[in-house]
Amino acid sequence: MDFLFRPRYVPMNRRRRIYEGKAKILYEGPEPGTLIQHFKDDATAFNNKKHAVIDGKGVLNNRISEYIFTQLNSLGVPTHFIKRLNMREQLIREVEIIPLEVVVRNVAAGSLSTKLGIPEGTQLPRSIIEFYYKNDELGDPMVSEEHITAFGWASPQDIDDIMALAIRVNDFLSGLFLGVGIRLVDFKLEFGRLWEGDMMRIVVADEISPDSCRLWDASSGDKLDKDRFRRDLGGMLEAYQEVARRLGILNDNERSAGPGPTLVQ
Amino acid sequence: MDFLFRPRYVPMNRRRRIYEGKAKILYEGPEPGTLIQHFKDDATAFNNKKHAVIDGKGVLNNRISEYIFTQLNSLGVPTHFIKRLNMREQLIREVEIIPLEVVVRNVAAGSLSTKLGIPEGTQLPRSIIEFYYKNDELGDPMVSEEHITAFGWASPQDIDDIMALAIRVNDFLSGLFLGVGIRLVDFKLEFGRLWEGDMMRIVVADEISPDSCRLWDASSGDKLDKDRFRRDLGGMLEAYQEVARRLGILNDNERSAGPGPTLVQ
Repeated sequence: MDFLFRPRYVPMNRRRRIYEGKAKILYEGPEPGTLIQHFKDDATAFNNKKHAVIDGKGVLNNRISEYIFTQLNSLGVPTHFIKRLNMREQLIREVEIIPLEVVVRNVAAGSLSTKLGIPEGTQLPRSIIEFYYKNDELGDPMVSEEHITAFGWASPQDIDDIMALAIRVNDFLSGLFLGVGIRLVDFKLEFGRLWEGDMMRIVVADEISPDSCRLWDASSGDKLDKDRFRRDLGGMLEAYQEVARRLGILNDNERSAGPGPTLVQ
Repeated sequence: MDFLFRPRYVPMNRRRRIYEGKAKILYEGPEPGTLIQHFKDDATAFNNKKHAVIDGKGVLNNRISEYIFTQLNSLGVPTHFIKRLNMREQLIREVEIIPLEVVVRNVAAGSLSTKLGIPEGTQLPRSIIEFYYKNDELGDPMVSEEHITAFGWASPQDIDDIMALAIRVNDFLSGLFLGVGIRLVDFKLEFGRLWEGDMMRIVVADEISPDSCRLWDASSGDKLDKDRFRRDLGGMLEAYQEVARRLGILNDNERSAGPGPTLVQ
């Protein structure tokens, strides 16, 4: 009978799910030390109080994140990224996630503007790195190096490594987006510990996409990021497509082909 | 006529008022580079949303703060304090106040407990230093070294000096209060820049009193600090008197003499 001769295939719903987050799912990978990172279409904001499904968002973020992580890897900025597998999935190294959201800010916006009374759009005197403790129940509170080291979330050496990598990513992303007419306002990174035998190094993990960055069109100031969703501006998918298009990922001709994003293979 | 022969006296209401805060007033001092710090009876909390007048609180804080700053000076921890002038006033050096509230925490309480979900009374793995930007309009938001240096509120060297001094003050206060059966939970410091010619050094400024510390009785856990007011526990003045008495400032016999505090001269 036909099915006996089919190649061995593990359907998606049979793979072991390691973790499901708000916008991604992690599955067990094909080899030890690897995972599969799956990008969902879910958009959430304000600690999950706001939720929607944006058809095609996951596909775009998978591609944009692939593009950026590939560049970072080749620049010698270590990341968890190995390769993209398909429209929604990428193969990554399994790392021990450090429970911090590391925010790099170049321009005042969002919570920094509210908290310190600085109008949105104000260029900061220099880039500022902030740490938030990853904990949904507590609403990801801002913490400082003192809390991080006292509670053992990361060592002083880890923090030094994280800050050095965050600055490198900011340098690269600032240049990349400048080149395509986008102002990199701020972005969020996550880091993980990658063990290779007894050796540990800190690598960039998670994703870098319009979900995790504030990206403003350099001329019009239009928001090309998740703030379109947070602030009910509409046109979220079109904004993400525009980012992908400018980065050379989306084919110009195919851009207006249909409701979902059409991607260059 | 009698008044012609009186010594020259500048009545309090004629002195130039430099600054009025929630619990203190600063007047021009008798010599350049000095100020008079006047302790009011006003108690405020939650960024001035709660207010009361507690008869005699200013007198107690003036004495407790005098006692602590005198000890710090003699230990070689530089402070703005020169000497107490009278029941409510002390002579201090004029400093350029650094716009930070520096909080040292030994035990989880208050906003740290709320923010990080740590039950009040939990001993912290080590002392934690926090910085808050002094700005009533913004509600004194927590900031990190990154914000402080980026916005120029203090230099990295200033922060190093502040942290070193904060640790010395914590060492001294922990010992002092331990010796009189009080657990030093946390406290707030302010620092100023003292200019001597071209030389600048950072000194401890403001006050150290039950208004700025969390002090728990070591046996009963009773609060002997401003939380009695913040949390409507009553007996605020009695608690401050108890702290003063244990520090040897209030005379035991005179303690129950009247409604206000009676102080050893």
